[in-house]
Amino acid sequence: MNSQSFTNLRNVDASLTENFPSSQKVFVKGSRDDIKVPFRKITLSPTQKSDGNTEENPPLYVYDTMGAYVDPEKEINLCKGIEDIRTKWIEQREDSEILNDFSSVYFHKRLEDDELKDIRFPNIKKPRRAKKGKNITQMHYARKGIITPEMEYVAIRENQKLDAYKDNEMLLKQHKGENFGVKMPETYTPEFVRDEIASGRAVLPANINHPEIEPMIIGRNFMVKINANIGNSATTSSIEEEVEKMIWSTRWGGDTVMDLSTGKNIHETREWIIRNSPVPIGTVPIYQALEKVNGIAENLTWEVFRDTLIEQAEQGVDYFTIHAGVRLKYVPMTAKRLTGIVSRGGSIMAKWCLFHHKESFLYEHFEDICEIMKVYDVAFSLGDGLRPGSIYDANDEAQFAELETLGELTKIAWKHDVQVMIEGPGHVPMHLIKENMTKELQECFEAPFYTLGPLTTDIAPGYDHITSAIGAAQIGWYGTSMLCYVTPKEHLGLPNKEDVREGIVTYKIAAHAADLAKGYAGAQIRDNAMSKARFEFRWYDQFNIGFDPDRAREFHDKTLPRESAKVAHFCSMCGPKFCSMKITEDVREYAKQKEIDEKEAIQEGLREQARHFKESGAKIYT
Amino acid sequence: MNSQSFTNLRNVDASLTENFPSSQKVFVKGSRDDIKVPFRKITLSPTQKSDGNTEENPPLYVYDTMGAYVDPEKEINLCKGIEDIRTKWIEQREDSEILNDFSSVYFHKRLEDDELKDIRFPNIKKPRRAKKGKNITQMHYARKGIITPEMEYVAIRENQKLDAYKDNEMLLKQHKGENFGVKMPETYTPEFVRDEIASGRAVLPANINHPEIEPMIIGRNFMVKINANIGNSATTSSIEEEVEKMIWSTRWGGDTVMDLSTGKNIHETREWIIRNSPVPIGTVPIYQALEKVNGIAENLTWEVFRDTLIEQAEQGVDYFTIHAGVRLKYVPMTAKRLTGIVSRGGSIMAKWCLFHHKESFLYEHFEDICEIMKVYDVAFSLGDGLRPGSIYDANDEAQFAELETLGELTKIAWKHDVQVMIEGPGHVPMHLIKENMTKELQECFEAPFYTLGPLTTDIAPGYDHITSAIGAAQIGWYGTSMLCYVTPKEHLGLPNKEDVREGIVTYKIAAHAADLAKGYAGAQIRDNAMSKARFEFRWYDQFNIGFDPDRAREFHDKTLPRESAKVAHFCSMCGPKFCSMKITEDVREYAKQKEIDEKEAIQEGLREQARHFKESGAKIYT
Repeated sequence: MNSQSFTNLRNVDASLTENFPSSQKVFVKGSRDDIKVPFRKITLSPTQKSDGNTEENPPLYVYDTMGAYVDPEKEINLCKGIEDIRTKWIEQREDSEILNDFSSVYFHKRLEDDELKDIRFPNIKKPRRAKKGKNITQMHYARKGIITPEMEYVAIRENQKLDAYKDNEMLLKQHKGENFGVKMPETYTPEFVRDEIASGRAVLPANINHPEIEPMIIGRNFMVKINANIGNSATTSSIEEEVEKMIWSTRWGGDTVMDLSTGKNIHETREWIIRNSPVPIGTVPIYQALEKVNGIAENLTWEVFRDTLIEQAEQGVDYFTIHAGVRLKYVPMTAKRLTGIVSRGGSIMAKWCLFHHKESFLYEHFEDICEIMKVYDVAFSLGDGLRPGSIYDANDEAQFAELETLGELTKIAWKHDVQVMIEGPGHVPMHLIKENMTKELQECFEAPFYTLGPLTTDIAPGYDHITSAIGAAQIGWYGTSMLCYVTPKEHLGLPNKEDVREGIVTYKIAAHAADLAKGYAGAQIRDNAMSKARFEFRWYDQFNIGFDPDRAREFHDKTLPRESAKVAHFCSMCGPKFCSMKITEDVREYAKQKEIDEKEAIQEGLREQARHFKESGAKIYT
Repeated sequence: MNSQSFTNLRNVDASLTENFPSSQKVFVKGSRDDIKVPFRKITLSPTQKSDGNTEENPPLYVYDTMGAYVDPEKEINLCKGIEDIRTKWIEQREDSEILNDFSSVYFHKRLEDDELKDIRFPNIKKPRRAKKGKNITQMHYARKGIITPEMEYVAIRENQKLDAYKDNEMLLKQHKGENFGVKMPETYTPEFVRDEIASGRAVLPANINHPEIEPMIIGRNFMVKINANIGNSATTSSIEEEVEKMIWSTRWGGDTVMDLSTGKNIHETREWIIRNSPVPIGTVPIYQALEKVNGIAENLTWEVFRDTLIEQAEQGVDYFTIHAGVRLKYVPMTAKRLTGIVSRGGSIMAKWCLFHHKESFLYEHFEDICEIMKVYDVAFSLGDGLRPGSIYDANDEAQFAELETLGELTKIAWKHDVQVMIEGPGHVPMHLIKENMTKELQECFEAPFYTLGPLTTDIAPGYDHITSAIGAAQIGWYGTSMLCYVTPKEHLGLPNKEDVREGIVTYKIAAHAADLAKGYAGAQIRDNAMSKARFEFRWYDQFNIGFDPDRAREFHDKTLPRESAKVAHFCSMCGPKFCSMKITEDVREYAKQKEIDEKEAIQEGLREQARHFKESGAKIYT
């Protein structure tokens, strides 16, 4: 990116604003005109029948996280931010108000600092907060029986236009999933969404100060979601780069983005990201709080942390990772570990607790935190500060002790109607993964689980997107609602643009494999459409139905670069003579010619008689 | 490679002949001097203690598939082939003899063809075959109660020097695996190996015409193995390239290599590969048979196929994929499928059966095939010609009908003491994977399962190493003995060198994750050694313990290229201030300083009293 891209990204960076080949952003309208739910429509080419005729293939509608960036009707001016679609919904509820000023001391300080004017987002809006005595969380509405536009929006979004395929047996036929308690409906209704949120089984992260988001839901009775981490560090990255990473992440399918910045100007960076993000943004406020006390953990105070929460809530952060489960008494449990405490937030809090010989201020002030969260509708992502950092430490006493406390905190948050998800590990060998899910559901009352991987082995640095995708797919199948991606650089260095793409696509695979196993019809339709394209040698469709059309085409072209190869009825792997699909076609042709019903013929053991079964025999492969 | 590399590879191609950093090929001797079992010894650096002292870390011994290529004592002359280590063992059994001539008509023809002299392997040896009336398979010996040197060799190899760690609790401590009927012993004995082979639960592929191999075993009560496919096709590749691919595959950890050539001079190519391969070589003889009838499946005959089996057996192929389960009556079952028949061998046989309206000649001549296999000790890999080619088709009637027939054939092979493994899919969503394993064990009487992936979704062309590693890790845990790798180019094009590396490392991860979950101590030791190195910021050790030291180092150096960063007690991801491991160290330091036993202190709730617990409190982190 460059400075020009701030005022007109569309003319500057096609890699962020051009849709995938044969793809188009389309909308499905809800009960009111301003509920317009986006999908990516992939147009497929017709099937060439062997009799010379063609047969149309219906377009494929897939979940779209790319926001306005691929909507040619929308101007993209990063200095203005993207259009907000929820403001009217929020206003109509009449339970929140625009404040005259920012409530955070730090926010003020940043606004008044003249040296920051060149990097400050130019269109900062006044913050919104619940009116006195009002609770404005989606969970609060849900429990009151109110279906919000946000809830209707996600119901349409999760349905993914399944009705478009209802008469198409070849695409719709699905395997029933072994479901581990997952109960996905055939059709998502706004009422189903409301009920899931009310029960705490699902989270709809939607800070009223982030009206730009396209609402989405995280829960195990919905599609599995993925999160991509971005953020600067002490020595690297600029605001431009972070905004680009956010857009890039949503392009490849990131459902939420966490800004884990620990470097310079993280307040300003966050403002740019939120104003331009169509997906919910999560943060770990303790990182910024630590910056404010110059990195000295023991100098952290509730007051600094509290101000940070308010600062970020008024910017529009949709969920906060808070490590309130790291209690003083659990810290010694990590002494036996091979890798101690590996969560940054966890180790900061452990250090604080030990230094002061005091219970964690996050734990002690948890109700105060809830009071803040509920007036902006920030969701909790209760951090697993004592997660294992190695296969050796998986599922140990410290980890599960903290999980129990997270359950206790979940109950408290729910008392305030504040939405909650629970973070999970990390590093777990395959045979110990299910216990994580089972315990989480029990201890935390079915609050959505949000895991990092888990990595199923530690011995492949450089490939941890893969070691962890193996675990992520499994735990997604068992019921985890959102998977935090891992890039190939994990444990080694900072991911670049290509690493982010690799990490996200890998996690889209894990989430999709889980959706298939859970029996989600929309997942099966996409697989079936791909298989049909493959069997029919529709190469362009194979590229375009996949998660990464660019790479698929690039790989194909490395061996067979000519355009003619992309309509050829064979591929480079076997050549025309050895192609099993070609042979299968020949078998079908042969069967047609001879007009023989093979099955009957063999059953009767009479080869000659088979010649009479012309009617049925004409179609061994239909 | 170039022509010079044929006579002195070591001086020409370091990428194939230099060991990994800090790694050395070492041997463990067996009961006789010529049983010398290879390991890769990875030397680790000492731990820098915070008191200024250092503590040694024991070297790590890992399974080594790289043969003589990384043994500096050995000359590598590809024209001579590698040293044979089994000839004496075979001779001492006195049940086989060297033939005066090759038994295959085609072999003769190739030898007599003057035009081939430039590409012919220059040191072709006369073939060996069982003496009349003798059965020389490893299964035959095992069932007679004979422990062969090969069996002792693999027992030592699977043990992986576990006794070197028996007093090292931190490394040896292991999680118990949920085992799905897997029964791995604490120590592998030659008798255990013999019993596994006798029962048919394991296969030791070792053609007496391939005395060059370092024996290995495939069975679910052993480490999970992986296979890499190589082979030319009609338009691409040379003999040089195929030999290079084979060596490259073993370098990254391929346990066996299948030569799937379908192009030119596949007889000669195979000779070069076998003479230089330290790992068992598998083939699909029907591919070459089809070449001999100019690609016209219906022209295949038992006689052509039979001659091909003998030709390849006398070259030294260790296992044959034979699609004898594709019976005439099963072909119509594939008519309902979305993707028909996708196995090349399966489609060839289906076409033949339909054309002739006859039962498959492979099925009809199965006993004849056994008679050939047992006089060379070629193992069966019974091909799954009707495996599903898509998620849609997984676990269908055709697939399981064929599996039942493979069980029937297993019984027949075992009657002849011929070793058998069973090939499996392919494309299977996660929730249907276990059924594949369960049915295979039941229908095929616990013969080792050898699966391709399975891919858990079809919608990520370009990433099928990952879609399939997810399935491979799971089915490996459930009990699959060998996993056939998939490269990123699957379904799109022919893999290059980097794709092969990516595919193999990905499958090493899947196999290793399965070994961990099965509770194999050797797997856990390597993970623990990595975790310890990570916690102690021993960067070089982290690179070297991993599956791909080169990539790990390259990734690390992209962010922090200086040598000093490789001894730094932090990394690029968080910098020194935010490093959780650093903070954990601080916590430990702090605890030491204060000499407080936190646990006791908190339990008693008396902060002051805690100061007395000096003795125990000195070591929160030991």
